[in-house]
Amino acid sequence: MNKVHNFSAGPCILPQEVLQEASMAATNFDNLGLSILEISHRSKSFVAVMTEAQNLVREMLTIPDDYDVLFLQGGASLGFLISAYTMKEEGKSAQYLDTGSWSKKAIKEAKLIQKVNVLASSSDSNYSYIPKDYEIPVDGSYLHFTSNNTIFGTQYKTFPKSEIPLVADMSSDIFSRKLNVSDFELIYAGAQKNLGPAGSTIYIVKKETLEKISAGTPSMLNLQIQAAKESMFNTPPVFSIYVAMLNLRYMLKNGGLSHYETLAKTRADMIYGEIDRNELFEGTCAIEDRSNMNTTFFLKDESYKERFDSLLTDAKISGLNGHRSVGGYRASMYNALPIESVEIVIDCMKKIENY
Amino acid sequence: MNKVHNFSAGPCILPQEVLQEASMAATNFDNLGLSILEISHRSKSFVAVMTEAQNLVREMLTIPDDYDVLFLQGGASLGFLISAYTMKEEGKSAQYLDTGSWSKKAIKEAKLIQKVNVLASSSDSNYSYIPKDYEIPVDGSYLHFTSNNTIFGTQYKTFPKSEIPLVADMSSDIFSRKLNVSDFELIYAGAQKNLGPAGSTIYIVKKETLEKISAGTPSMLNLQIQAAKESMFNTPPVFSIYVAMLNLRYMLKNGGLSHYETLAKTRADMIYGEIDRNELFEGTCAIEDRSNMNTTFFLKDESYKERFDSLLTDAKISGLNGHRSVGGYRASMYNALPIESVEIVIDCMKKIENY
Repeated sequence: MNKVHNFSAGPCILPQEVLQEASMAATNFDNLGLSILEISHRSKSFVAVMTEAQNLVREMLTIPDDYDVLFLQGGASLGFLISAYTMKEEGKSAQYLDTGSWSKKAIKEAKLIQKVNVLASSSDSNYSYIPKDYEIPVDGSYLHFTSNNTIFGTQYKTFPKSEIPLVADMSSDIFSRKLNVSDFELIYAGAQKNLGPAGSTIYIVKKETLEKISAGTPSMLNLQIQAAKESMFNTPPVFSIYVAMLNLRYMLKNGGLSHYETLAKTRADMIYGEIDRNELFEGTCAIEDRSNMNTTFFLKDESYKERFDSLLTDAKISGLNGHRSVGGYRASMYNALPIESVEIVIDCMKKIENY
Repeated sequence: MNKVHNFSAGPCILPQEVLQEASMAATNFDNLGLSILEISHRSKSFVAVMTEAQNLVREMLTIPDDYDVLFLQGGASLGFLISAYTMKEEGKSAQYLDTGSWSKKAIKEAKLIQKVNVLASSSDSNYSYIPKDYEIPVDGSYLHFTSNNTIFGTQYKTFPKSEIPLVADMSSDIFSRKLNVSDFELIYAGAQKNLGPAGSTIYIVKKETLEKISAGTPSMLNLQIQAAKESMFNTPPVFSIYVAMLNLRYMLKNGGLSHYETLAKTRADMIYGEIDRNELFEGTCAIEDRSNMNTTFFLKDESYKERFDSLLTDAKISGLNGHRSVGGYRASMYNALPIESVEIVIDCMKKIENY
């Protein structure tokens, strides 16, 4: 079977080597004669997986010792609530930057448990840029933002400088860029982009932040409890964490964060280069805020659509359709996407030009 | 490699055929040339999996049309909170039966959001029986109980008769016994016993119950929102649901609920028979409340322990150690456990008798 070029927005492409190893572990894990799917999460073999996964995250992002790394469930959607419970401060207002669907959802959940101020928003232009013109109130409890906006194709190229604690949902660009973890009190990310399959969510949290969490916080939403139990307050999503661990191993072996940051820039430069050169296409976002992970663009003349879509299908390109709230096309280019797949898309863009 | 007899309390044994199919899908799912781990949850292929999984649960348990079936994340531990949010009624007190660790946790979370009355408890004898002597207040909002107690080895052989709505955490015995779903307003269960691998949680909820959920409920904990989005409010745990679907298919093909109920009784009769016959062993629970899923017992004379443990190891019996809060041994015998594995344990029990 010919290779499929997987541009899915998430869950998304993972390295073949990782998939092969995951497949083998589904029948015989760690030479136990048992599948990874049927072993106790308290078994030595799985405790070793959990520990290694946490350590690999630390290594990949150079996380200081005064931070905990957790693997939980619920995706960023539960993270919206967990982050609010973690960071809320009596009498203070939480500050949120609104850069699209995910920010809006984060704001909605945060509002259920505290006062929230939407500091800036790019909703005025269907989220085609990252707001930059705002002043962070020094008496706010924390500033929350979404580092990369999967649906609209924007990305913070630099993170906000803030005197109040920074919190980021990095679901869709974690492990694709260098970052200084100590600039943040809390980072969370659903696994299903650069980390692994759907089903686990990573939390990177400053230990002293955990001490401030209110005792009335429900246990599953209380990162202090989750950290004290080393991500095993309840049965963790064993297989998702295992595959994330395999993928972290793979990424570190293949050059680590520097390599993937360069790769992300290379892929993005290639496709944005073609979008800007090719008269038939146009990008949807402000150039300086264009995402290196999710490239959103459209055909200026819709009459080319049928032919272009058929070129994509013939080239076995999967998942290039844009999100319904933006339309057009979206090339999601996560860590495991080879340069070759980007070349194939560009090839289709050139072909339609000569049609 | 010789077969391992997997008595793990959960995550636990799954059928070999299911593990094989899961393993194959991890490299090529549905002949797409893509892994189940890297496809969009909105793809046709996965939407079909989700629909089939829900339908198979309906078929397996003969669920009436006025109930929704959901596959979410978070395990029963998040279910404690979700069930409380689903069922709470202003001005009414929630009624809980306390039969062990999991009930206690459910009570703790429920208390965070409403008034809770612990109606009966067997904590006075380390949860070795199911309380039967209580009267359900007709002005209570609902009655919550844990149908099977994994740690202590007790099980409700008949469910409470109640005029107020019944809610049950059936994590460890769902799909092992017939039940009349319409006796309940809400049933929830972590997948990692009889359903599939860790990472997904099933909710069976009466549709009219959903309408009563308060609008201030956080989205991820709001079953009305989850039902309206057909378990895809956020990215579901794709692989866990896929394997659960495979296992449901397998269970239906192999005799369905009747078969597994008979099998559970057969296995339980075999091992309890030996516990009662063999002078060296004693069960920990009231005979009428003994679980068909988790058999808890101990050696009356600890000096036999070393020899018995070594017999178990030689026979490749895995996961027979008791939980730390009970001690002794625990044979967890979930749906996929073959009779042969039970025979091997009994064989060890007989051997130590003649030692």
